[in-house]
Amino acid sequence: MTRTAEELSRHLGTELEGDPRAPLCGVASHESATPEDLIYVDSPRFEESAQRSAARCVLAFAEANLRGKTVLRTAKPKLAFAKAAAWLLEPARIAEGIHSTAIVASTARFGVGVSIGPYAVIEEDVEIGAGTQIGAFCFLGRGAILGDGCRLFPHVTLYPAVRMGRGVILHAGAVIGGDGFGYVYGEGRHWKFPQVGKIEIGDDVEIGSNTAIDRGSLDNTVIAAGVKIDNLVQIAHNVRIGENSVLAGQTGISGSVSLGRGVVCGGQVGIADHVTVEDGAILGAQAGVFMGKTIRAGQTVMGHPARPAARFKEQQGWLARLPQLAERLKKLERAMMGGEVKE
Amino acid sequence: MTRTAEELSRHLGTELEGDPRAPLCGVASHESATPEDLIYVDSPRFEESAQRSAARCVLAFAEANLRGKTVLRTAKPKLAFAKAAAWLLEPARIAEGIHSTAIVASTARFGVGVSIGPYAVIEEDVEIGAGTQIGAFCFLGRGAILGDGCRLFPHVTLYPAVRMGRGVILHAGAVIGGDGFGYVYGEGRHWKFPQVGKIEIGDDVEIGSNTAIDRGSLDNTVIAAGVKIDNLVQIAHNVRIGENSVLAGQTGISGSVSLGRGVVCGGQVGIADHVTVEDGAILGAQAGVFMGKTIRAGQTVMGHPARPAARFKEQQGWLARLPQLAERLKKLERAMMGGEVKE
Amino acid sequence: MTRTAEELSRHLGTELEGDPRAPLCGVASHESATPEDLIYVDSPRFEESAQRSAARCVLAFAEANLRGKTVLRTAKPKLAFAKAAAWLLEPARIAEGIHSTAIVASTARFGVGVSIGPYAVIEEDVEIGAGTQIGAFCFLGRGAILGDGCRLFPHVTLYPAVRMGRGVILHAGAVIGGDGFGYVYGEGRHWKFPQVGKIEIGDDVEIGSNTAIDRGSLDNTVIAAGVKIDNLVQIAHNVRIGENSVLAGQTGISGSVSLGRGVVCGGQVGIADHVTVEDGAILGAQAGVFMGKTIRAGQTVMGHPARPAARFKEQQGWLARLPQLAERLKKLERAMMGGEVKE
Repeated sequence: MTRTAEELSRHLGTELEGDPRAPLCGVASHESATPEDLIYVDSPRFEESAQRSAARCVLAFAEANLRGKTVLRTAKPKLAFAKAAAWLLEPARIAEGIHSTAIVASTARFGVGVSIGPYAVIEEDVEIGAGTQIGAFCFLGRGAILGDGCRLFPHVTLYPAVRMGRGVILHAGAVIGGDGFGYVYGEGRHWKFPQVGKIEIGDDVEIGSNTAIDRGSLDNTVIAAGVKIDNLVQIAHNVRIGENSVLAGQTGISGSVSLGRGVVCGGQVGIADHVTVEDGAILGAQAGVFMGKTIRAGQTVMGHPARPAARFKEQQGWLARLPQLAERLKKLERAMMGGEVKE
Repeated sequence: MTRTAEELSRHLGTELEGDPRAPLCGVASHESATPEDLIYVDSPRFEESAQRSAARCVLAFAEANLRGKTVLRTAKPKLAFAKAAAWLLEPARIAEGIHSTAIVASTARFGVGVSIGPYAVIEEDVEIGAGTQIGAFCFLGRGAILGDGCRLFPHVTLYPAVRMGRGVILHAGAVIGGDGFGYVYGEGRHWKFPQVGKIEIGDDVEIGSNTAIDRGSLDNTVIAAGVKIDNLVQIAHNVRIGENSVLAGQTGISGSVSLGRGVVCGGQVGIADHVTVEDGAILGAQAGVFMGKTIRAGQTVMGHPARPAARFKEQQGWLARLPQLAERLKKLERAMMGGEVKE
Repeated sequence: MTRTAEELSRHLGTELEGDPRAPLCGVASHESATPEDLIYVDSPRFEESAQRSAARCVLAFAEANLRGKTVLRTAKPKLAFAKAAAWLLEPARIAEGIHSTAIVASTARFGVGVSIGPYAVIEEDVEIGAGTQIGAFCFLGRGAILGDGCRLFPHVTLYPAVRMGRGVILHAGAVIGGDGFGYVYGEGRHWKFPQVGKIEIGDDVEIGSNTAIDRGSLDNTVIAAGVKIDNLVQIAHNVRIGENSVLAGQTGISGSVSLGRGVVCGGQVGIADHVTVEDGAILGAQAGVFMGKTIRAGQTVMGHPARPAARFKEQQGWLARLPQLAERLKKLERAMMGGEVKE
């Protein structure tokens, strides 16, 4: 849909300079933009490339100096750009109507405007909220409850009894509600510990491609509203993740871990069983948190085992200076012992 | 199915106190239990919550003090609980009968009571043992042989010629028997090394969601009986894993690695090519074993590179004390050299 | 197809000794070979097992001493073996013809000899090159363009507008072109940063099972020709990977990373945002490259944070010798201070 700079400016609450009727139909990078694409610039470093861009409209920081452009000024151009994109661009549809090849149990109940792609399978007692789109080959196990406006890309698997709120996005190949990994060893074999808990996913959660999230063993796995989870992430049984936490790719969260609100995990972070990560903590990429530890609110940790970032960096520094330390030690030994030096 | 406390006690061989006719129809945590759910308590720490639970029946350690409950006493309550769950609860069915949309090659052969879900594809010469359940969208490549009582959740892919024993569980999105990752570089490109080996999976193996296990290149990949593999694990060509080994989530095993029996890998462990891990060794989460190394039987290793756990902890301790060591060195230098101190 | 030793020798340009008419119909390891399988030996270490093998034909290094065998001599037996396998063995077909259950949009265009497996879904405006094979349950989103001779195993998902060259192999469960993981936090929630870029995959790329590669956010993700990617790898938005680079299993590449040509990543490598890895660099397994760093051409790095391999090993050595260093320091202190020793 084409909008004008003025309409966008009103939507975002920005100041407008230049042509209020400049048309807008997309968003782009400085290099790839057409005249009708919106671009943004949030630092003087990128002013020149914004100036050179074919785009006529620019979301820009307060002091940006741009000639011949229609400029929408704001303190947070990147945030405004994301909001502009959500407003300008309808996300591509995943399905249209109920495809004739979809297999839908007679006891499934759909809200208004639900779409189901080809070859999807919807089992008994599934409830799907209004406007939710289900991609090809999705499998919704019995008793799943999905809120309004969810988007399931192709090949998503929901084990039975998954519950999710509104506006949840599940990317291709995600597996939600699988059996937790729990066994008790005895009599020469591993006995499967019961995995009879459930899983609840809050509003506006997004889950990446091929990510796997297990349901609880006896209690529930709970992913709160606004959590964003990248591709190939593993979340074990009984994990609880607080609102708006963000987990980057290939992170692994072990059983019964509790993450607070607004926690950030970099890529390939590993958290062992029964860890508590308090609100707003940041775990650097590849950090490893050992069993039962607590990461304090707001703390940034790095490394394996995870330790405060400042200490991690300090220790890395010491590690690098060990040869010099050893050299100084040798020198002292020589001085004291008259040449009788050990290796 | 509802059972009585007495029936369960007889099945488990436990001592029974209280009402032998107390009905049981499920298992639960202390908090979520209904009166007819079984709970367990294996430590005085949890006695109070067990006492408060709505559950009437408790599997408890010998000295547990519980009032007004029907108590089944045993030395290993958690093991007994797992066995009780297996006895009380029929696992949810993955498929019922042969769905009309399943595509089954005319040369496929099925045992008694095989179930195939919607849109599954079974290629030529596949053999499926009695009572095995195949979920929706599963793909069984030609020549696959599955034992009795296997359970394949939706979206499992078996490349051609996979062989597996009885009671194997494959979770959603698992890919078994893919091409190994092997190339020979020459003449400016990577030539694919032949991947013509097979893969054999023993009885009672369980494999997690979206895990990938490649078949052998010239010989076979072999996963022995009782092995348990979590989600998103990668197992390369020609790997051999001994009986009852356990691999936690996101572990990666490189080509031609040999794991003994009862090996335990924590989450995100990485094992490079041609490593040997002997029986009963334990690899801590995120441990990295370098190419060609051997981990001795029963040893616990941690870190990158993996080293004995005691040494890992000792080294971490030294790393933390480096600033003090350096301070002491500086002090000595000052004392010896009369103030002429280096940084 | 059966060939003769002479035909193979001519194809490879090797020297032939022994029976030129020896028949060849496969490749194998020394142990598993039948008389009509080809084996190779590239080191005196394996001469004896080659001699014992049932195989009649051996690709061997120049000085290999083998009695009673038909020997094809070459300086690079393993390379010749890979080439021989490619020549002798037709890869197993993934699909035959267009299966009647495939759903193909009317605007899709196919080259000669395209095959589509059961239950595949091909959306509008997809173009598929000659001889390309699409497995069961593959989903090709609208506007995908595939070159000639590609092979997509079952359960591959292509989001809309994926472009790939000739001879690309995508293994089961791979997800190509998903949304990048980008958000802007503001007003108490994460706003999705627009993910409107594309993805381009060059000729002869191979991508492993359950690997996920996101399309660009504003610009494109680009995987150049000849790149080989293993299972469960994560590649984020806007990544650029140069020709013939190789990424082992579970490696994760963050947003806007640039890899040169011929880069090698071991298993579980993690590369943070905006890193540059120059041509021919080698990243050891589990290495972690921090945000914004550059790895120089041809350099080998290891560890977390990634550092030159020699320095990594040296530092590991120092770490191991810290107890001795501390002991020497204590001895000096004792000597100087007359017994007044600190811990």
